[in-house]
Amino acid sequence: MAWQQAAAVCRAAGEPLTIEQIVVDPPRAYEIRIKIICTSLCHTDVAFWSGKIKVTAAFPRILGHEAYGVVESVGEHVEGFVPGDTVVPTFLGQCDRCSSCASEQNNMCAAVPFVVGPGMRRDGTTRFRDGEGNPVHDLVAVSSFSEYTVVDVNQVVKLDPAVPPKLACLLSCGAGTGVGAAWKLAKVEPGSSVVIFGLGSVGLAVIGELAGGGADYSFECIGLSSVMTDAFRCIKQGKGKTIILGTEQNSEPVCLPSIELLFGKCVMGSLFGGIKPKIDIPILAQKCMNKELELEGLITHEIGLQDINKAFDLLLQGKSLRCVIWMDKCKQQSSSWLNL
Amino acid sequence: MAWQQAAAVCRAAGEPLTIEQIVVDPPRAYEIRIKIICTSLCHTDVAFWSGKIKVTAAFPRILGHEAYGVVESVGEHVEGFVPGDTVVPTFLGQCDRCSSCASEQNNMCAAVPFVVGPGMRRDGTTRFRDGEGNPVHDLVAVSSFSEYTVVDVNQVVKLDPAVPPKLACLLSCGAGTGVGAAWKLAKVEPGSSVVIFGLGSVGLAVIGELAGGGADYSFECIGLSSVMTDAFRCIKQGKGKTIILGTEQNSEPVCLPSIELLFGKCVMGSLFGGIKPKIDIPILAQKCMNKELELEGLITHEIGLQDINKAFDLLLQGKSLRCVIWMDKCKQQSSSWLNL
Ligand SMILES: [Zn+2]
Ligand SMILES: [Zn+2]
Ligand SMILES: [Zn+2]
Ligand SMILES: [Zn+2]
Repeated sequence: MAWQQAAAVCRAAGEPLTIEQIVVDPPRAYEIRIKIICTSLCHTDVAFWSGKIKVTAAFPRILGHEAYGVVESVGEHVEGFVPGDTVVPTFLGQCDRCSSCASEQNNMCAAVPFVVGPGMRRDGTTRFRDGEGNPVHDLVAVSSFSEYTVVDVNQVVKLDPAVPPKLACLLSCGAGTGVGAAWKLAKVEPGSSVVIFGLGSVGLAVIGELAGGGADYSFECIGLSSVMTDAFRCIKQGKGKTIILGTEQNSEPVCLPSIELLFGKCVMGSLFGGIKPKIDIPILAQKCMNKELELEGLITHEIGLQDINKAFDLLLQGKSLRCVIWMDKCKQQSSSWLNL
Repeated sequence: MAWQQAAAVCRAAGEPLTIEQIVVDPPRAYEIRIKIICTSLCHTDVAFWSGKIKVTAAFPRILGHEAYGVVESVGEHVEGFVPGDTVVPTFLGQCDRCSSCASEQNNMCAAVPFVVGPGMRRDGTTRFRDGEGNPVHDLVAVSSFSEYTVVDVNQVVKLDPAVPPKLACLLSCGAGTGVGAAWKLAKVEPGSSVVIFGLGSVGLAVIGELAGGGADYSFECIGLSSVMTDAFRCIKQGKGKTIILGTEQNSEPVCLPSIELLFGKCVMGSLFGGIKPKIDIPILAQKCMNKELELEGLITHEIGLQDINKAFDLLLQGKSLRCVIWMDKCKQQSSSWLNL
């Protein structure tokens, strides 16, 4: 059954989102319809909203890709999920059957590969229509700024219902990327010196301190080619590593002095900090519950869906790290509500 | 005592070397004087000979940095070496006391650091003078195109006398770099697909085969920025690694599409393929003796010191991989002499 539900729709680049009643199609084969509990705003949403990423500009569009929710219904051939399961959708899929998924070091599933442009990854179509029956595009096949969304089974991770919703939400992109980059990708050892370029919430999740003679690790979280070069220059000869986490904002190449590579430097990058969603998000969620991983401090604001444009303003003004958006403000359990 | 001995001297960029009687000073504190048994010609010698590397052009100069020899005498404070020890000198030092040497992943000793320019690394002076008493510069503080040379104790590796001299010689730079890059740096697993750019003897030591969807590893052994970019483009998303082993010939930066880094690619480089000379060369030498590592095929020519300019011609014409130069042609034990 197609459902009429509220969603924040981006009608044109850079324009405020409008709260509209939209139709959400039922899940097709290998898809899951999710009732979103909370979602948060990431710089990537803002980049797509601004229209800067021209190659994939598509409007009207439902943005949002960091979220937590509950399975409402499942399509044909979906195994391992039933209505009521608590889950996070993720922009990166994991089929657990392809050669990439079989490799410990590779999180780029080849079966339902990540694409920047809109469209469900198996058939390229959308599950959203507006009040006039016109299609509304998705974002990275997640589109969480909506009461309900439909996501490919490969992009859904089941979580223990005891995990606090807003922390689970953060792990599905920003915090997962930052922690993953330090843990899975750079494999930062205790006592290492680390420099972070770009202290958004991705950056803050990997923060450390700088030692003389260059840093052991540097992380670029901004997405500027010149900053990537700086991040590379500041690391130690012999074993320094630079980790690129930011998407270059102007599609510029990164240029590195090749002699410094020869003197024992390394540059790497990855989507989602090397995280394999179905394996690693549950591990990180457990660490949050054990207080081994503290993510509460990244949440600076919490609002309801109707106020979503405030979340954009706060991020654009540099006033927030993560703003959590609750679909049903009345049901929110947070005691840390911050007035705006 | 200063010795008069034969050496091949490079008097000017791109000119044939001249065999001259030179004076080799005795070793100073922390130095060892080595009687060279055999040496081989590497592309790096040719790069310094050509004068292309302008920032360090210095003539007259004694080139050569891949060699095998016997300790003739030791300076003050030298421990662990006595006359008669069979050794290889290396361009990279290892003090075993600094923090870099203490780290398993770092082969850039901070105590007597590698420098491209001439001069012994503790005092910047040379141990060579020509027939008229004028100083003759060294190359990377090794200068093995000479019957005798003086090398810092940190740059000398003791080897089992049973190791065949010409294989030991190859391990001290070219073959060590190639094998080290696959073993220590890239950590290539069996069954991986590998692409080599630049099939010199550095490249041949890491050869593999290419699979669809990009290679797991690529190695750049030429030293051209555009080839480095190609090497990066040809690797797999998700976990591909590019290893830079060539010194960029025109000091150009290497430019990489940053989005491909984000899609899970890695670029790294190192001097000597990540080899820690005093630990790893003896291990590789043992593998040669066990026939686990076959380096004989890299040696395409063998000549005496008086014919050293032929070694340059052969390499420049692409006709040789490694040409071994025996200091005393009569004493050579090789059964694989190749007539030129
Ligand atoms: Zn997969
Ligand atoms: Zn995000
Ligand atoms: Zn050291
Ligand atoms: Zn060499």
